[in-house]
Amino acid sequence: MKKFFRVLLLLASAVSLSACGNLKNSSLANNSKTTSSTKTKTYQTTETGNGGYTVLLKDGHYVISPIAGLTATTNDNSVDTREFERGLIQISKSQYSTSSYVFQEGQYLSTSTVNDWLARKAPSNKTGLNPALGSKKQYNPYYLEEILEQDYLTGSGSSYRLGGMSIGLAMNSVDYYQKVKDGPEYQEDISRSDQKDYGQQIADQIVARLRKQKDLRDIPLTIGLFSKTSKDSLVGGTYFLYGTAAANSSKITSWKPVSQQTEVLPTVGNAKAINSSDASSFNSFKEAIQNYFPNISGVTATLRYENGKLAQENIAVTTQFYGYEQVQSFTRLALSTAKKYLPSSVPLEIKIGSVNNVQALIAKETADSDYQVHIYGGE
Amino acid sequence: MKKFFRVLLLLASAVSLSACGNLKNSSLANNSKTTSSTKTKTYQTTETGNGGYTVLLKDGHYVISPIAGLTATTNDNSVDTREFERGLIQISKSQYSTSSYVFQEGQYLSTSTVNDWLARKAPSNKTGLNPALGSKKQYNPYYLEEILEQDYLTGSGSSYRLGGMSIGLAMNSVDYYQKVKDGPEYQEDISRSDQKDYGQQIADQIVARLRKQKDLRDIPLTIGLFSKTSKDSLVGGTYFLYGTAAANSSKITSWKPVSQQTEVLPTVGNAKAINSSDASSFNSFKEAIQNYFPNISGVTATLRYENGKLAQENIAVTTQFYGYEQVQSFTRLALSTAKKYLPSSVPLEIKIGSVNNVQALIAKETADSDYQVHIYGGE
Repeated sequence: MKKFFRVLLLLASAVSLSACGNLKNSSLANNSKTTSSTKTKTYQTTETGNGGYTVLLKDGHYVISPIAGLTATTNDNSVDTREFERGLIQISKSQYSTSSYVFQEGQYLSTSTVNDWLARKAPSNKTGLNPALGSKKQYNPYYLEEILEQDYLTGSGSSYRLGGMSIGLAMNSVDYYQKVKDGPEYQEDISRSDQKDYGQQIADQIVARLRKQKDLRDIPLTIGLFSKTSKDSLVGGTYFLYGTAAANSSKITSWKPVSQQTEVLPTVGNAKAINSSDASSFNSFKEAIQNYFPNISGVTATLRYENGKLAQENIAVTTQFYGYEQVQSFTRLALSTAKKYLPSSVPLEIKIGSVNNVQALIAKETADSDYQVHIYGGE
Repeated sequence: MKKFFRVLLLLASAVSLSACGNLKNSSLANNSKTTSSTKTKTYQTTETGNGGYTVLLKDGHYVISPIAGLTATTNDNSVDTREFERGLIQISKSQYSTSSYVFQEGQYLSTSTVNDWLARKAPSNKTGLNPALGSKKQYNPYYLEEILEQDYLTGSGSSYRLGGMSIGLAMNSVDYYQKVKDGPEYQEDISRSDQKDYGQQIADQIVARLRKQKDLRDIPLTIGLFSKTSKDSLVGGTYFLYGTAAANSSKITSWKPVSQQTEVLPTVGNAKAINSSDASSFNSFKEAIQNYFPNISGVTATLRYENGKLAQENIAVTTQFYGYEQVQSFTRLALSTAKKYLPSSVPLEIKIGSVNNVQALIAKETADSDYQVHIYGGE
């Protein structure tokens, strides 16, 4: 019913779009003309900067995957969400080059299919990819929490065809459960080795199932295994393994490790930082700005390491400022302090504010300067 | 009592600062050494970019004015706050050049003095600058809502002296009142001409009072008259008049108009935009991005005009995005759409997000790029 409504909405917007045709060619590469048929389909693409994918729009709209956000349990930690998607795009780049392929959110897996797959296997749900509940003595956890599909297409003009697909499997590192309804909550830790074993098993089953769809027979299928964090984690999970089933193959023959780590600074308790020099430069920055300004309630950083190397540092400074000149003056101080203490050759974001919810910024600072674009969290 | 506590806090932080002396010289121009006396005072300054003032720090801290935020009534509209401060700094620049003077939030007017000044004149409050309540037939509104002090200092090293002062007077354009306690609310509109007459009267009284303080006898005193908005306004108020009493003079002899206007687009009802071409370019931008993306719940712009010319355009795009690639892709679309439709020679901010509370951003977009700084709302 929901899906039917979505289709209706899409049709409605296609109609409303044709009423303002001058916008259609605006800033998008409009690659096709509609022909006079009942099924009009136009494709446009949006450029993406900094080595990202061009995104395919359909009938003038960004297309959302119907399975986005479906989860097996209700224990989802939202800090995982962004990295689950971003990480799979990064993995895909090694398989589907950004110059030959365009991106679209997954359109082949439906809500009902994925809901069945995420549920436990049962006589009434033969396609369930999570194990049956088990016995009183032996509880079987939910291993698979979430499935993400990304489509990579080739083509131009009015003709695009699927050239490859990536599937992300979010594997729980902790499963939370109750023995009786409304009873106390128990938790079952899932080792990396179990995440790996179950993840690879599930991956092979998914590849076999996808091969039954005609459109998916002769394309490469890439599957990434993502380790979700616990409910209380401050840092999001990371991918730890990926592999590709070549076109027409029903199996992933070789898996490659993904070496990625994230951490939040300052560390909690006696936890050791991944890199002590990065931790100490952050600490100097933090102390300097906290000593010179009142009303700074927190300075934290999220660092991402790839293959042991710092790849991105995002700092959040939480303030209770209200004055215009105070913000101006503090920002300049933070800038010069950052130049002095923080690593000079790493993408860096310093977000100054009271809450975490601006996602992107485009600005022209002065009348003569060019636009600058910033995506929160880095690219 | 509150102030005593503040002083204690300042002393405490001066002590804690001396324990980490290596930070003191960090990114600040530390102009003096403390000498061994009970009263240690060190000054530092922070650079400010884009033609702003250098800010004087005292004992390593940004100094806040004790009268910031005091109001005569409880009907304050917070959209006025930023412009009340920013506008007075702009006015001050014509009087106190940014190359010779440094900025400090006002330190000469105390909380108790200003509370008395903002209250109604009464036998028990002879210094009240708002009129007595009046009779049943003739209600006298609160004309003066808020007072802002800014100090402009000259000097270097350990010696700074006050070189000029600016005072902002926020004059109500509407006063809200009740005839009986908990009764219905009435409102009294105050014409621009009344704002001007009362504002100028009050300004002269304030100049005369300030001249009685020894430090304030022989410096120029600049007073700006600010018109506050109604409680429901979406745009902040603006300054409409300013004048300076020369050193040793007890009167402002010539007042100069400030021609500034602000508006929010799209306009409400049949209201006419200040400049139809700016309104139409914004509208094209808005339609283009709303047609191509779902989940955009609002696109609004705040435009500021100075002497009839567009000086700043700030656009807020409210989204319900969650996906990584959706934000990336939308931001690129917004960028190219902005380049196509929006004015090319005006400082511009496009804030994309779900709420309005990040105040500033510093970012290095890639490993090789320089830092870029953005202050929300423009400079």
